[in-house]
Amino acid sequence: MKILVINPNSTLSMTMQIADSARRCAFPGTVIEAINPKGTPASIEGHADEAMSVPAMLDLIRAGEARGVDAYVIACFDDPGLAAAREIAAGPVIGICQAAVQVATTIATRFSIVTTLPRSVPIIEDLVEAYGAGHRCRAVRAVDMPVLALEQDPTTAEARLIREIEAARDVDGAEAVVLGCAGMSDLCDRLQLQTGMPVIDGVTAAVKLAEGLVGGGYATSKIGAYDYPRAKSACVLAQTA
Amino acid sequence: MKILVINPNSTLSMTMQIADSARRCAFPGTVIEAINPKGTPASIEGHADEAMSVPAMLDLIRAGEARGVDAYVIACFDDPGLAAAREIAAGPVIGICQAAVQVATTIATRFSIVTTLPRSVPIIEDLVEAYGAGHRCRAVRAVDMPVLALEQDPTTAEARLIREIEAARDVDGAEAVVLGCAGMSDLCDRLQLQTGMPVIDGVTAAVKLAEGLVGGGYATSKIGAYDYPRAKSACVLAQTA
Amino acid sequence: MKILVINPNSTLSMTMQIADSARRCAFPGTVIEAINPKGTPASIEGHADEAMSVPAMLDLIRAGEARGVDAYVIACFDDPGLAAAREIAAGPVIGICQAAVQVATTIATRFSIVTTLPRSVPIIEDLVEAYGAGHRCRAVRAVDMPVLALEQDPTTAEARLIREIEAARDVDGAEAVVLGCAGMSDLCDRLQLQTGMPVIDGVTAAVKLAEGLVGGGYATSKIGAYDYPRAKSACVLAQTA
Amino acid sequence: MKILVINPNSTLSMTMQIADSARRCAFPGTVIEAINPKGTPASIEGHADEAMSVPAMLDLIRAGEARGVDAYVIACFDDPGLAAAREIAAGPVIGICQAAVQVATTIATRFSIVTTLPRSVPIIEDLVEAYGAGHRCRAVRAVDMPVLALEQDPTTAEARLIREIEAARDVDGAEAVVLGCAGMSDLCDRLQLQTGMPVIDGVTAAVKLAEGLVGGGYATSKIGAYDYPRAKSACVLAQTA
Amino acid sequence: MKILVINPNSTLSMTMQIADSARRCAFPGTVIEAINPKGTPASIEGHADEAMSVPAMLDLIRAGEARGVDAYVIACFDDPGLAAAREIAAGPVIGICQAAVQVATTIATRFSIVTTLPRSVPIIEDLVEAYGAGHRCRAVRAVDMPVLALEQDPTTAEARLIREIEAARDVDGAEAVVLGCAGMSDLCDRLQLQTGMPVIDGVTAAVKLAEGLVGGGYATSKIGAYDYPRAKSACVLAQTA
Amino acid sequence: MKILVINPNSTLSMTMQIADSARRCAFPGTVIEAINPKGTPASIEGHADEAMSVPAMLDLIRAGEARGVDAYVIACFDDPGLAAAREIAAGPVIGICQAAVQVATTIATRFSIVTTLPRSVPIIEDLVEAYGAGHRCRAVRAVDMPVLALEQDPTTAEARLIREIEAARDVDGAEAVVLGCAGMSDLCDRLQLQTGMPVIDGVTAAVKLAEGLVGGGYATSKIGAYDYPRAKSACVLAQTA
Repeated sequence: MKILVINPNSTLSMTMQIADSARRCAFPGTVIEAINPKGTPASIEGHADEAMSVPAMLDLIRAGEARGVDAYVIACFDDPGLAAAREIAAGPVIGICQAAVQVATTIATRFSIVTTLPRSVPIIEDLVEAYGAGHRCRAVRAVDMPVLALEQDPTTAEARLIREIEAARDVDGAEAVVLGCAGMSDLCDRLQLQTGMPVIDGVTAAVKLAEGLVGGGYATSKIGAYDYPRAKSACVLAQTA
Repeated sequence: MKILVINPNSTLSMTMQIADSARRCAFPGTVIEAINPKGTPASIEGHADEAMSVPAMLDLIRAGEARGVDAYVIACFDDPGLAAAREIAAGPVIGICQAAVQVATTIATRFSIVTTLPRSVPIIEDLVEAYGAGHRCRAVRAVDMPVLALEQDPTTAEARLIREIEAARDVDGAEAVVLGCAGMSDLCDRLQLQTGMPVIDGVTAAVKLAEGLVGGGYATSKIGAYDYPRAKSACVLAQTA
Repeated sequence: MKILVINPNSTLSMTMQIADSARRCAFPGTVIEAINPKGTPASIEGHADEAMSVPAMLDLIRAGEARGVDAYVIACFDDPGLAAAREIAAGPVIGICQAAVQVATTIATRFSIVTTLPRSVPIIEDLVEAYGAGHRCRAVRAVDMPVLALEQDPTTAEARLIREIEAARDVDGAEAVVLGCAGMSDLCDRLQLQTGMPVIDGVTAAVKLAEGLVGGGYATSKIGAYDYPRAKSACVLAQTA
Repeated sequence: MKILVINPNSTLSMTMQIADSARRCAFPGTVIEAINPKGTPASIEGHADEAMSVPAMLDLIRAGEARGVDAYVIACFDDPGLAAAREIAAGPVIGICQAAVQVATTIATRFSIVTTLPRSVPIIEDLVEAYGAGHRCRAVRAVDMPVLALEQDPTTAEARLIREIEAARDVDGAEAVVLGCAGMSDLCDRLQLQTGMPVIDGVTAAVKLAEGLVGGGYATSKIGAYDYPRAKSACVLAQTA
Repeated sequence: MKILVINPNSTLSMTMQIADSARRCAFPGTVIEAINPKGTPASIEGHADEAMSVPAMLDLIRAGEARGVDAYVIACFDDPGLAAAREIAAGPVIGICQAAVQVATTIATRFSIVTTLPRSVPIIEDLVEAYGAGHRCRAVRAVDMPVLALEQDPTTAEARLIREIEAARDVDGAEAVVLGCAGMSDLCDRLQLQTGMPVIDGVTAAVKLAEGLVGGGYATSKIGAYDYPRAKSACVLAQTA
Repeated sequence: MKILVINPNSTLSMTMQIADSARRCAFPGTVIEAINPKGTPASIEGHADEAMSVPAMLDLIRAGEARGVDAYVIACFDDPGLAAAREIAAGPVIGICQAAVQVATTIATRFSIVTTLPRSVPIIEDLVEAYGAGHRCRAVRAVDMPVLALEQDPTTAEARLIREIEAARDVDGAEAVVLGCAGMSDLCDRLQLQTGMPVIDGVTAAVKLAEGLVGGGYATSKIGAYDYPRAKSACVLAQTA
């Protein structure tokens, strides 16, 4: 089976790190392709960055459909364009936030999330609430570092993540912690080892769920909201009334 | 004060109709500009259409900022890109769904919404829930006509809208009805007259709230999630890991 | 247009302060009348004070209907008697809590409220929850001063308000703050200036929404729960069964 | 123990019927006093009627406190002034809606409510939601008769109530039915007999809970929101600013 | 009337303490029987302990039905097997958590709960949420002592309970406190006296509600989910497919 | 990897059918063991049946732990004893309701569930709500046949299931349907084929998620509520206080 993992931002080093995480956890028969669009923001930190990344990401999915991709993983914790992607794909589309939350609620009664910047906290809170896990999520915490700083200064990143994971356990009463950024994927094992807490990386979670959904024969419903977009012509001139 | 009303789809006739509705209700001192981006879908019917419209819409807001626009109205009932637009604008940004819901919950205890296609029903339900009015909204109904059919076949549209508004009153127990598409704006008065029900058009609602917010000195908070996007370079080559 | 702003308590100095705030923000064509009933509590601090104020407030609305008032603002943050007032008025009736919450959720993703006494905290929490903004409201804080102390000791009031607004930003992660008492109205601009936080006064918010609703042609729905009270005779003797 | 059952409207015949229901179910040692205020609406059908009844009801509670009443029952299904009454009383105050809902959620997983007029439906829905039983309540149904018509035309009332109770069972999937008006109290046993459904009358429910709370030594908490109202002077002249 | 109070764990000393609390608050005409099953865990601290206790508890209810018990109290704060017990009993079955929550929401607007071990915190939170009182419950606190340590080291237990009750008042803003373990029953009066806070013991609350329900003629609905289990034969050999 | 699929009831033919469904969807490397306890009810139709099945099911899990089972599937749609099982198992434990809901919310925005008896409807509704998908679930429908009748009269079962699936699509607006009983597992493909609707069988969903969780290295958190039960001695004599 072929799974396309899309990093919606345009930073190749991050795409490579995500690809590593995806391949490390995949079953032998699974082919992982990892890609990022060109021209999108270098990192996704807020609603506008999300919005600017989605059309190019949808193009990658359209191309994936043409070459027989079985499932898609959107490797940004804001799950940007998740519903739009489902309209375009025949197979399942998994967002790493939704996947991580599904794993967290299966292995723990309460969890916390640790993300990068404080501005992403309400975005993630709203997402988790929409996924129906608001009452299970103790807190969304931020290490207060931009996304790309995770790879530029991994030592600081790791120290701050450990501090927040320990606070999640000791202050929040969390029983597991979700990493709230695809760029933290490669730190997952080390963080779990050093804190003794179950730590969930969304890329891994999403790849495993994607494999399961394809393996179970599940496809995106084309009845109702996730049906393919209706074809229509787009007018090409900006117009003022 | 200058309010920019943006129709995110690329159909000029619809933009003109929206402009009419906006100008009809505006206070004398208000300047209404109405515009639509080029190259976006001819109508917005689902998440993918939304996603394909937002970047060009954000460009119009960036341009608006440069020429001193005081507030923005996003004239599509899915409120596409609303949060992203708020990151970019200094002044208030009003979505017509959120505005209509605010009016509805002020003049009635229970309301229903009538939209175009059934596929938009869960989108609008989720939106209304996120705005905190799910318990006030009796039902989201659909006339089962595409957006552009509203102006191509206004007689059928009006007949079906009347039927659904009456069902909202008699079956749902609604006390007011919200029109769930910007393209229904010009029918609002006629529908209210013919059914005796309070009928709320989101374009009108949004323009009045925009005037109020600007008049009250309110601006979008730049502390936290609606802060301006962080500047960063975007890589320009599509890349596969 | 004529808007009647009712301070439901019987303290004239507070009514005058509210009138100033209302007039300061009103559009040129708006006539603001401000009034308070006689015989109601000197301040509203709890459910019983609310209950004792509402009948006289409804009388003022009945009188307002007779002389052509277009919209009403209830200038007490508990929004006492709001639904009852809507039954009696033909035009829109705006509560300052509901108005402030509508503004807050339009310009920020998360907000906190600062009120007077701790006993009002659960009242306001329940109100905000009923308005559907519970998930947007980080905290309701109290300066622990009675309502009338705001004008008797403005220096202490201002210092404590600044402290709580800063805590809302730094501890709660609020992006805007709502002032939870009509008596704080005149401090709004100073507080915003001194803290750098968007600060929302409900009187201002309600006047602007009232103007917008009247300007948009909106009236209270008379179908269903906000219909005029049914006429019936009241028995005049206390009776024990 | 002495329980004061207050019918907040001013219709003596209804008070007498309520008194009968209360006395029929009370334990031998319980003294039931039943009373109604003078000058309040003849029936309570909406928010304005509620508001006009509460101050006189609170006066009856103040008088009750002076003569050693142990607990109060507010015998109107809208639970008007419940929180205000709790501020004034030392002992427990029970609303018949809250009591009936507590009984219903103890003996059934899902219930429906049958009330008088359609305009009361959203009021009761909001009340049940605030009591945390919204997910347990299948529907609020109305027989579409004014409160006083229940005693003026008991034959029609009974027939319509049976019809709605049967619909609650067959259409809603309700396992029990709550009577949504104190004026239905005397029909409870007959309705249960004729439909085979558990039928819950709020007056009975409230009296039994009141006995239990007093018997268990429970009093209204005077820490926080239900503390006695702060004393303050009321200005006596109507004033316009 | 005969009420059977069941301690689902197998510790007789705890059953005796519970019996004392139940008898102390019962009306003169009430016969309290107290019992515990054999072979169940010595204390209930988690879901598995609950599960291991319920079948034997249901046997005790079946036996109670045979000898004319009028109502049942399940005296463990997790309310284990409450719905199952209602299927088996004709009369009302009261869980001490549900009862305590009903009392708390009648005498206070906000409450906190103090239980034994931290692992029980999410269990109780979920229970309170399912009972519809999540928005009324400020916090579930733990003294971090096993259930049986309450009677083995009552001095430490009392000191820690006082500390948590004071924190509930001062930190949480609670207006009343619920004791989150049947084993704390005998401390209730002392804790209330020493802290000045209303303290609610679930055993007392449940006995009083049980008396009220029986006295009011209420029985468990046998229409729908609480109907008697359907008879069917059980296969007796473990089987592997 | 070894997955133990437990049918908590004692009907071997149903266990065999479940085993078939599990093996049909499993990846090549997965070993599926299927088992049912002895002495539990022949089918699970209500809370009491659930409660009577759980202790024997937990024994099977304890035995599974001893022989190196990697993950468990509880193959009853009520997810009986799910939390208790997680306390006992080191690896993941998947309930078929939770799994089916996770799949449904990934491939559709709205779904309905079709179960056997009406008495199970509120049980499943509450379960889905607790899993956070209440707002996604349009309706829980019942074919009104006992569990074992599914295999005794498969023709009627299939006809009624098709009728309800079509009603889910046409009346509820569901985009996918979940089969609400493990005994329907073998009908899944036929139902999907005949109705054209995506139909989700919980056994398949759970096996695939179990494989994914084990493959991703996830284990049940032993910090907090799912920690192993504390060891304690159980008293062995029934005792009356």
